Amino acid sequence: MDSTHVSKFAPHVWSQTLVQFTEPISPHLAAEQLGSKLDWQAEDASLVRRIKDWMLLCEHEPRINAAILESAGGVHSPSPSGSSQADFLRPLRLPTILIGSSVLGGISTTRCSYESLRMRGYDVDAVLLFPSPHYQNDKYLAQFFADQGIRVFALGGPNVNSWGMPPARHTSTKQDAEQLQKYYLGMIHGNGRDDCMLDVVNHLRECHAKRYASLDTLGERAHQHMWWPFTQHTRIAPDDVTVIDSAHGDFFQTYEPSSSTMKPVLDGSASWWTQVIGHGHPRLALAAAYAAGRYGHVLSPGIAHAPAVTLTERLLGHHEPCRLAPGRGWASRVFFSDDGSTGMEVAIKMALQSSVRRYSAAVVSPTTEARIKPGRQSASLGGRTPREWEILGLQGSYHGDTIGAMDACEPSVFSEHVAWYRGRGYWFSPPTLRMKCGKVYVETSDSAEWGKEPQCLGVFSSIEEVLNVQKRLDTKLAAFYKRVVHERLENLVIVERRRFGALVLEPLVMGAGGMIFVDPLFQRCLVDVVREREDLFSLTDPPLRHAHMGRVTAARSNGEWRGLPVIFDEVFTGLRRLGCKMGADILGTTPDISCLAKILSGGLVPMSVTLASESIYSTFACSREKTHALLHGHSYTAHPVGCQVAIETLDVLEEMDLNGSWTPYQKQWSSEHWSVWDKSFVNLLSHADRVSGVMALGTLLKIELKTDSVSGYASDAANDLMLKLGKQTGIMEHDTTSSLSSHTFPLHLRSLGNP
Amino acid sequence: MDSTHVSKFAPHVWSQTLVQFTEPISPHLAAEQLGSKLDWQAEDASLVRRIKDWMLLCEHEPRINAAILESAGGVHSPSPSGSSQADFLRPLRLPTILIGSSVLGGISTTRCSYESLRMRGYDVDAVLLFPSPHYQNDKYLAQFFADQGIRVFALGGPNVNSWGMPPARHTSTKQDAEQLQKYYLGMIHGNGRDDCMLDVVNHLRECHAKRYASLDTLGERAHQHMWWPFTQHTRIAPDDVTVIDSAHGDFFQTYEPSSSTMKPVLDGSASWWTQVIGHGHPRLALAAAYAAGRYGHVLSPGIAHAPAVTLTERLLGHHEPCRLAPGRGWASRVFFSDDGSTGMEVAIKMALQSSVRRYSAAVVSPTTEARIKPGRQSASLGGRTPREWEILGLQGSYHGDTIGAMDACEPSVFSEHVAWYRGRGYWFSPPTLRMKCGKVYVETSDSAEWGKEPQCLGVFSSIEEVLNVQKRLDTKLAAFYKRVVHERLENLVIVERRRFGALVLEPLVMGAGGMIFVDPLFQRCLVDVVREREDLFSLTDPPLRHAHMGRVTAARSNGEWRGLPVIFDEVFTGLRRLGCKMGADILGTTPDISCLAKILSGGLVPMSVTLASESIYSTFACSREKTHALLHGHSYTAHPVGCQVAIETLDVLEEMDLNGSWTPYQKQWSSEHWSVWDKSFVNLLSHADRVSGVMALGTLLKIELKTDSVSGYASDAANDLMLKLGKQTGIMEHDTTSSLSSHTFPLHLRSLGNP
Repeated sequence: MDSTHVSKFAPHVWSQTLVQFTEPISPHLAAEQLGSKLDWQAEDASLVRRIKDWMLLCEHEPRINAAILESAGGVHSPSPSGSSQADFLRPLRLPTILIGSSVLGGISTTRCSYESLRMRGYDVDAVLLFPSPHYQNDKYLAQFFADQGIRVFALGGPNVNSWGMPPARHTSTKQDAEQLQKYYLGMIHGNGRDDCMLDVVNHLRECHAKRYASLDTLGERAHQHMWWPFTQHTRIAPDDVTVIDSAHGDFFQTYEPSSSTMKPVLDGSASWWTQVIGHGHPRLALAAAYAAGRYGHVLSPGIAHAPAVTLTERLLGHHEPCRLAPGRGWASRVFFSDDGSTGMEVAIKMALQSSVRRYSAAVVSPTTEARIKPGRQSASLGGRTPREWEILGLQGSYHGDTIGAMDACEPSVFSEHVAWYRGRGYWFSPPTLRMKCGKVYVETSDSAEWGKEPQCLGVFSSIEEVLNVQKRLDTKLAAFYKRVVHERLENLVIVERRRFGALVLEPLVMGAGGMIFVDPLFQRCLVDVVREREDLFSLTDPPLRHAHMGRVTAARSNGEWRGLPVIFDEVFTGLRRLGCKMGADILGTTPDISCLAKILSGGLVPMSVTLASESIYSTFACSREKTHALLHGHSYTAHPVGCQVAIETLDVLEEMDLNGSWTPYQKQWSSEHWSVWDKSFVNLLSHADRVSGVMALGTLLKIELKTDSVSGYASDAANDLMLKLGKQTGIMEHDTTSSLSSHTFPLHLRSLGNP
Repeated sequence: MDSTHVSKFAPHVWSQTLVQFTEPISPHLAAEQLGSKLDWQAEDASLVRRIKDWMLLCEHEPRINAAILESAGGVHSPSPSGSSQADFLRPLRLPTILIGSSVLGGISTTRCSYESLRMRGYDVDAVLLFPSPHYQNDKYLAQFFADQGIRVFALGGPNVNSWGMPPARHTSTKQDAEQLQKYYLGMIHGNGRDDCMLDVVNHLRECHAKRYASLDTLGERAHQHMWWPFTQHTRIAPDDVTVIDSAHGDFFQTYEPSSSTMKPVLDGSASWWTQVIGHGHPRLALAAAYAAGRYGHVLSPGIAHAPAVTLTERLLGHHEPCRLAPGRGWASRVFFSDDGSTGMEVAIKMALQSSVRRYSAAVVSPTTEARIKPGRQSASLGGRTPREWEILGLQGSYHGDTIGAMDACEPSVFSEHVAWYRGRGYWFSPPTLRMKCGKVYVETSDSAEWGKEPQCLGVFSSIEEVLNVQKRLDTKLAAFYKRVVHERLENLVIVERRRFGALVLEPLVMGAGGMIFVDPLFQRCLVDVVREREDLFSLTDPPLRHAHMGRVTAARSNGEWRGLPVIFDEVFTGLRRLGCKMGADILGTTPDISCLAKILSGGLVPMSVTLASESIYSTFACSREKTHALLHGHSYTAHPVGCQVAIETLDVLEEMDLNGSWTPYQKQWSSEHWSVWDKSFVNLLSHADRVSGVMALGTLLKIELKTDSVSGYASDAANDLMLKLGKQTGIMEHDTTSSLSSHTFPLHLRSLGNP
């Protein structure tokens, strides 16, 4: 009806009703009542597409001066699908005019609506309302919104017509039409004194110009002043900077200054693998805001607040139902810190201190020490003291960029120029997985453990088969793995006289190292051998003589760590990234210490946790001495915002489990495809000429290219591909549905050249 | 009027109007119109106090079954002071009933109101509305709120009276009264089928019982499963845990299970010095929610998003007006990370790599190296390789708990049991400040630099006087400081053959080290000498011969770092904590690298920045080699939520500057008192018998107690005091105003025993 009315009495306004119901009720109800009689699609996505098409039409119609989309009802009035207006229109993130209310109570509804819009990332350019001389809402709101930098237009002052309201119906149809036309003309052009719609349109133009002017320079300004992580700035021109206007679901909304256009671009690395339920998720925004409003932040030591305690209990599996409980069955304590790197520093401190305590009797006398030759100088810069406490790990691992986390990794491009880096450990060269022509190969590289030449240790018919560690534990390969680990360890400890304090693994996939898929059977065997050979790690000088007495494993009570504390770095591999709940699940064993981050806090704010068994914890709670405690902490330890967002994320993930959005993961791995990637697509890729190997697991797809030139991080090969992919993903249609399922699986392509 | 009506027709309900205006308009307007005729205080705080008193009255009146407070208008309807209902009632954080709307558009207003309540930390226990058979809002909202775990009551179904609405007025007064009484009785007791008020009251009781049951066990559960930072768990009993229900302004709302009561407790350490504009600030909550809704998180390298770029420019001083621009005049780049510790690791990497590059010619040959005796073994555990790159610092400093940050600090209780810790530096024993009996003493402790016995180097009549570094630069003491530093440095470099890569300072106050106030003149002299004596740090074996040639400072272009890169760790001291904008301002010099955190992100979420000069940056952007870049990064680098909150915080702080909330800081230090603490109170304290010294600066108050027993972190002396203070602050009236000025100054008492 509105459309007809406007066309009739405001001839300069072209009005079109995109969606219409006969009943003046909420759209969701109207759609429900129509049921199958509904002759157009009621899904959010198709409606958004229609709106987008209409806007493009307006853009190309020269007679149209300004296009305004009127939503149905209020900010949260239901769309035909039942979602709210604000949510379903969010993918477009149009500059917004909020229509305020001038009646009693209107200040409240206007401010509340504003906050709900902001919480969804909308920018409100103007607030429009009728003036109200009695309630003076316009006066109050003008001041309030001015503080937010938003202009309020009180349309149609006293000089237009009875405070902006349309004139009362005239008995004469002709005169009625005349006075209405006069009214609308007045509203549009004003009287020179009061606000009118032309002012609004001009203001919107200004806002738009400002917005685009800011976007035009944003990349350049970032290029000039920001110091990006992992970035060689000299290789980036101002034009290379990706300008991100906003993000929604799996997509960035990027801006291209050269063409002044917005373009959806797939977030192929899930923003460094932090995203799991999509960008701009309203539930996470509300969770963050709630914790911010209830607590802000409160310091952590000796303090209990609900978000931290609840999250702790859920991670440990004390809440039912909770499917995603990475600590269930083995962990008893949760230590909070800020990121994967700090979480791993905490893990290493926990492990080393535990080893030092247990094996402190093994510390040799200074005289003996002097006779021991220094350990292998494993760091490229700096050296290592003889008999340093070292870690056992894998080549290609990465645990973060603080010095302690770096020292747990072998020398690499990350550490080459870091003066304080010194690798403190021994890193096994792990057998890796690669699918080629439909088969999965287990292969070694040239290294001390495996002989000079790369070897193929096995061929499997599917990824699932090679991941069946339980079944493979009885194979000859398992025995071979154990023997190799065993011999190497004896050599390290007895011959090289090295002293170890922890085993550190990224289960299954070493992400930053180059998406290296490790044979999980090898990792399992490594863990088992380390736990079986406590005698090796408890070596002291006097008992050295009877080291060859045999494999005397100390009698350990249930749950007590054996051999060495085992740390699983699940920052990248945990919480459904690989389909399974945790990478550890594939290995079929539990660690003594586990570190989680990235997905943990929903892809919103930094937070990490280090889970520990009671056995590890008791090392620190062994006395009343303050200095025995884990003297580590950060100001924002267990910050309520992060904890609340983490809880909300676990809720969403568990709902997805229950409603089947994660169906591939529900079923047993043995019979099913453990990846969101289509099996035949992956198979096809594995046959491609230029592809030397693929792997797909969970949301992860790895494509290894044959290159003639140098490989690894120094390689530029990926740049060409990324360029092509960038262009392709650029023209992919922005997914405009707001349903969770479509936002579940951020595609994983090696990101913008960095880990 | 409502009150009279209810008393008359619903005799079982005792209704009282606490605040009344004659005009049915918004309270702020009514109050404004009454002006001086207003016979009660319209401030939020006094209204909240009246409400609290009324609730206590209800609690002690046995005939009252349930007390419900009805606010005026909607969630954001203005209070008499002009603030919103939700904001001004927030200090009470009462369990909330949201009255939904059953008219067209009511779904939207109800949902928007709900979000505004949540954003302020309210828990909504129930939603009440009339059933609406036509619009079916109750049906939609019942489903929506059920998903949030909230029950919706559609009061008065069809069986009560025309969909819950009161009956039409009867012509007979008697019959009108009768039918109204019947109506209210029906609403209260129901008909056994539909929702009624007794159901609501019972539900609220259940919610309350659940809430308190959860609070009763929260401390115990935290005690059982959390691993607190810096905490010796064996020293904490379950009853010792502070249970925090919420926080607002400068206060925690704590819960005491023994008495089942809530109690406001002053956040004396500003939650590890992160708070600056108070807990639960609605502007920060909205800023966080906006960024969450607009972006979530987006990865950082090569990417520009508005919050990060805007914050970067503001920190560098490119935006006007911006008073708080710590990088203005010297810094050209901002590197983001997650906390003070990671920020300092970044700073150290920046500095060391810069020194390595400049002085790489100085790296001696392996043969020469072998002849050099190892440097002093400064670490209690582990040793140091000869000619390691070390830092210069001060004894008592603290830069974080990751290994790199720890290594920049001298051995202490924090590092005693950390296997991988090795102090890599030389730490000067700094002259410190102490006010006693109204005078400020500059004193040294027993150390190599200052002779065996502690000395008093000067006495000043006020804190302000001793902070006037500019004036003191010409004194004999300055010359003495320079000579001491000078001699020590020559000894370290020429005699001990040690190699340094950075000077690292916490300007003015070393917080975690024990709130040590350092004489800023000494820090300034240290910086000056380091910059003047580049010849010392560029020493190589061959030039060693002419080291004594004189102080040859290399000609450096303007802004280029000289001698050693100077790092200021302003994590604790920056951004108004000490009154001045930055601790560096007092020193009257600028660093080459500066680290900020804590206050930076408004006391809400973790984030830090490392600011660097162009000279430092160019070390890394010196070639197109990836490996020359600063290969450091965290997943949530420059996360939009943190950046947006930081911008909002800077906005609020700058508004406080402009409107005079920070008045003491506006004026010149030379003539004014530079602290929020009352000058005569501080003076009085300095005369107290049991007090050995005080210092007050900015929001910080340090009281040093005379103790007979052991001092430092092993001391229990503070515990007794804290216990007493805890009891005192516990009975302080919770400040219920929501004005910023009263939330400006978190009081600083040494916190819960930890840094």
